[in-house]
Amino acid sequence: MTRVHVWGASGYGAAEAIRILERHPAFELGALESASHAGETVGEHFPRLRAVTRRFDSESAVTEQLASGDAVVMGGSTGAARRIAPEFLARGARVVDLSVDFRFDSSAVYGLPERYRDGIAKASLVANPGCYPTAALLALLPLLPVADIVQIIIDAKSGITGAGRTPSVSSLFAEVDGEIRAYGLDGHRHQPEIESELRACGSEAPLVFTPHVVPLSRGLLADAYVMCGAPPDAGTIRAAYERSYASSPFVRVLPQDQAPSVAGVTYTNDAEVHVSVAGKVVRVICAIDNLGKGAAGQAVQNLNIMFGYPEELGLDARSLVA
Amino acid sequence: MTRVHVWGASGYGAAEAIRILERHPAFELGALESASHAGETVGEHFPRLRAVTRRFDSESAVTEQLASGDAVVMGGSTGAARRIAPEFLARGARVVDLSVDFRFDSSAVYGLPERYRDGIAKASLVANPGCYPTAALLALLPLLPVADIVQIIIDAKSGITGAGRTPSVSSLFAEVDGEIRAYGLDGHRHQPEIESELRACGSEAPLVFTPHVVPLSRGLLADAYVMCGAPPDAGTIRAAYERSYASSPFVRVLPQDQAPSVAGVTYTNDAEVHVSVAGKVVRVICAIDNLGKGAAGQAVQNLNIMFGYPEELGLDARSLVA
Amino acid sequence: MTRVHVWGASGYGAAEAIRILERHPAFELGALESASHAGETVGEHFPRLRAVTRRFDSESAVTEQLASGDAVVMGGSTGAARRIAPEFLARGARVVDLSVDFRFDSSAVYGLPERYRDGIAKASLVANPGCYPTAALLALLPLLPVADIVQIIIDAKSGITGAGRTPSVSSLFAEVDGEIRAYGLDGHRHQPEIESELRACGSEAPLVFTPHVVPLSRGLLADAYVMCGAPPDAGTIRAAYERSYASSPFVRVLPQDQAPSVAGVTYTNDAEVHVSVAGKVVRVICAIDNLGKGAAGQAVQNLNIMFGYPEELGLDARSLVA
Amino acid sequence: MTRVHVWGASGYGAAEAIRILERHPAFELGALESASHAGETVGEHFPRLRAVTRRFDSESAVTEQLASGDAVVMGGSTGAARRIAPEFLARGARVVDLSVDFRFDSSAVYGLPERYRDGIAKASLVANPGCYPTAALLALLPLLPVADIVQIIIDAKSGITGAGRTPSVSSLFAEVDGEIRAYGLDGHRHQPEIESELRACGSEAPLVFTPHVVPLSRGLLADAYVMCGAPPDAGTIRAAYERSYASSPFVRVLPQDQAPSVAGVTYTNDAEVHVSVAGKVVRVICAIDNLGKGAAGQAVQNLNIMFGYPEELGLDARSLVA
Repeated sequence: MTRVHVWGASGYGAAEAIRILERHPAFELGALESASHAGETVGEHFPRLRAVTRRFDSESAVTEQLASGDAVVMGGSTGAARRIAPEFLARGARVVDLSVDFRFDSSAVYGLPERYRDGIAKASLVANPGCYPTAALLALLPLLPVADIVQIIIDAKSGITGAGRTPSVSSLFAEVDGEIRAYGLDGHRHQPEIESELRACGSEAPLVFTPHVVPLSRGLLADAYVMCGAPPDAGTIRAAYERSYASSPFVRVLPQDQAPSVAGVTYTNDAEVHVSVAGKVVRVICAIDNLGKGAAGQAVQNLNIMFGYPEELGLDARSLVA
Repeated sequence: MTRVHVWGASGYGAAEAIRILERHPAFELGALESASHAGETVGEHFPRLRAVTRRFDSESAVTEQLASGDAVVMGGSTGAARRIAPEFLARGARVVDLSVDFRFDSSAVYGLPERYRDGIAKASLVANPGCYPTAALLALLPLLPVADIVQIIIDAKSGITGAGRTPSVSSLFAEVDGEIRAYGLDGHRHQPEIESELRACGSEAPLVFTPHVVPLSRGLLADAYVMCGAPPDAGTIRAAYERSYASSPFVRVLPQDQAPSVAGVTYTNDAEVHVSVAGKVVRVICAIDNLGKGAAGQAVQNLNIMFGYPEELGLDARSLVA
Repeated sequence: MTRVHVWGASGYGAAEAIRILERHPAFELGALESASHAGETVGEHFPRLRAVTRRFDSESAVTEQLASGDAVVMGGSTGAARRIAPEFLARGARVVDLSVDFRFDSSAVYGLPERYRDGIAKASLVANPGCYPTAALLALLPLLPVADIVQIIIDAKSGITGAGRTPSVSSLFAEVDGEIRAYGLDGHRHQPEIESELRACGSEAPLVFTPHVVPLSRGLLADAYVMCGAPPDAGTIRAAYERSYASSPFVRVLPQDQAPSVAGVTYTNDAEVHVSVAGKVVRVICAIDNLGKGAAGQAVQNLNIMFGYPEELGLDARSLVA
Repeated sequence: MTRVHVWGASGYGAAEAIRILERHPAFELGALESASHAGETVGEHFPRLRAVTRRFDSESAVTEQLASGDAVVMGGSTGAARRIAPEFLARGARVVDLSVDFRFDSSAVYGLPERYRDGIAKASLVANPGCYPTAALLALLPLLPVADIVQIIIDAKSGITGAGRTPSVSSLFAEVDGEIRAYGLDGHRHQPEIESELRACGSEAPLVFTPHVVPLSRGLLADAYVMCGAPPDAGTIRAAYERSYASSPFVRVLPQDQAPSVAGVTYTNDAEVHVSVAGKVVRVICAIDNLGKGAAGQAVQNLNIMFGYPEELGLDARSLVA
């Protein structure tokens, strides 16, 4: 059993990590540090997790309980992990950070296992990708080596948990219900993260990225439209996706007549990918759960890889009937 | 044309009043005072009212623009109307207050037209009822004179706009979606308002009141279960309801095989009432829109009565197809 | 490992049973018989279960594969189980029927483990209770021996999966969204089932039962209001609930300041119960998942008991973060 | 007053037309023919329109009541209008058909007033556009004359009323809730309609069109991504949109920092358009109500134009507060 502490434990992403880790066969929960909610039970803070009677620990709990060889999953707001993670690392812990803090930092491995599995296995510090970049990159990475890409367009739709649990008018039920709205019109904060990884993979094609909020709690669909210099061969493209994900247990490349379904991956660590070609355009549709493969599920997948457990361990949840 | 100022104009109730008044044939909008949102257009503050390009006016705008014979609709938080309404009244305005401030106060007429139509016509100050009391009282009032009531139970279900637009975790989309929850278990703030009116009508029967939040934005259903000392006669009871509401244009007493539908009254000032008898229990189900008949619609109905216009003027909206 | 066949496998309840059994440590799935969907994968029929690649088996599959000592979970429409279950029983199988067919039949044990645990352990045929009766009876049973009951009122709110998966206008998204509506105004089909069990427990008090549909997929809240002949003692009442459920792993009796939350039990086999007293009225609020404790979860709980496994085995799911 | 008959009156589009026409100052409702629902009131068939007590008329009602100079709005399934409209036209009526029947037919004028206002004014037969084509064309038409277009991509998201009111599993609440899904992956039926109009406007650029269903009842957002041969000038593009829609009362070209909001146009005949340029890509986002500007609202706008009334008459509804 490896002990996993959760630092900054009171947001949606950290809570989902707690939910998964609580019944993971190889990990046991250590401290659940939340300066703002110390003393409350998880179930009091999250009515939907009422059955979880563990209490949040107070500030410095991780520092106090940490032992070499432990793991830490870090939630919390931007900047916090950058301040505190170095101490955890110095004491021999391995860290998966859910925030944006280390995603552009060479001290960390970018935690997208479908691309960086080997690096993650050896990493001390893993920067868990954002939800939009996860879906976008799963949609695009297999294509980069086989297509002459002129322009990339990503039209993404996300559930509202992607905006976090801090109350704001724009996240209220009465404002989200009945609404579809694009946001971040002149550059969403996730666009540089997607571009950075595309550059790292050798693509210099310009990117247009439009995120939208739609009325659901969890789930994310990204439609990538890739304009090529010449009409690509559909068979070649499709073969590239099947090859790329042949050994990735969580990514399903769907047959032509099946559309990715957000409901079909919600509450799981799965991703569904559909790729097709129309003239010079390759369209790739990718569905994930923004809190699953887009956050906490992927964090646990990374932990599995880091600690030498089977990649799927504790992540075999099915989605739900309704 | 009568001029209607809106004071405390930035909440859901006041916004709905603006929406209705904007196209009311006998009222014209005066100042729209909002200290916190002065300068913003209504449409910027409420994305769903983007087409409304009027700007909120700054503090004291009503005071500055008020003329004798004008009306003021007051939104704003508890206590505000109590401080400011006296000045408006002193200057010859007539006031409809959406808040709780004057609902227990003999200086005001309780603004439930189906009961106090005559008093409202002559009133300078009308305390607009809360949404739960409106539905509860429409369900109960016709019954009081004709039944020997032992116990009253009200089980009510409301859309989340009833909680207002101030951001809180419990009103977030991701917290309301998929949830049904009772609240105010040991006495909701609307219970005394219901009891106070029942007492005023001569009933001393004890009341149990349970409000619930369900995942919709607008609409309210109240199921009243009235335990009587002896089995009442269904025909007598039903006749009492039909007689009570015969001259009330907004209340529909439904036939036995039709259930009140929240969707059928949402976005209108209508109420639907169904009454039936089983043994010693009279069950009355009442559906209203919490922002319509439960707030802004009723306020405009009161204004119509106060200023001698037809009670239905400007309130003939139909609900929606879907 | 005990083999469990699912007969009539294409509805919501049976699908949820498949989802739970698929990863149950002591049960293995046998035939999944669906005359209408034979050959389709579970995931093709239920997009939300796309990851389930098992195919539905054709007519008679259970008959062909059944061995003595197997279990059969029966979905399917009213009347089907009555025709076919006798054959399964004759061949040495033990049957849990999700339909109404045997709920009033002395040949079966009523599958509410919190009341009939011992009978279920020995039963060959278990009639799994309906979702409304499950919530109603969990709310009422502890009260029957300790209160002088004059009248019972149950106001229940359910997600739309309770209406099944057969398409109808009233279950369309555009008809349920934004709606709260009572139905079955003159006697819902679940009322006799509740009354029958109350009678079996010695209560002859009259019952008023009002079911409502609200805009969510899964989950059920029942508010029971019990009118007593004299004001009961709150401490006695509360002690009765705690005692009754002390050894029931799935029922949580909540403290006075916590309301049952549908979202807190959805996707689990849990029930939350809150009891309070106001004058002569005892109010008991019970939350369950209509497809969990109200159908498939309870069926698996019954199977665990029938086959001597720990009651909670395979049913330790937590609800979800959002 | 012009009399407007509604033929095929029992679907969502026709019902919305009835709702609008019922209070239109220049039109009066004639026959409401519905072979399948004759004798029912509109409010019985559509619980949300309970206040509408008119009854559906039986088969041939329009034929019997039609007078020269009347108008007919035709709902109904594909093929029906083609059979019956000629008779109405022969008898001197003017027809607006909501179905696809005449959209590719030179005997009809394509009813997109922002492009064909003059033709519509003189037309006897108007083919009302589909909801997706309406949004797509409003997004694209101003661009065609001013950009060198290489490729058009449209990613559209629609509420479920777009699928009609005929019950199907895929439109059930429990299947749409929590879901985002692309459909029509190899060619949605609306794609040829969009292409046909683009061709008519002189554009031969290839089109990729991806419709999605999201969990809301009404509303549609289309994101058009137009790849150009060279980077267009943002000012020129924007000016083209402002010029194109300067005299179109229902189309709002938004400033750069405001995103089109589906909730802001739902229940209205408005369209919101946002245009921006990034390198060689012009992105145009257009929000409409699929039953408003995408169906019944546009039909009434066409009737206004055909009969010489002000284009906005009876179509000045605001959207809703929540």
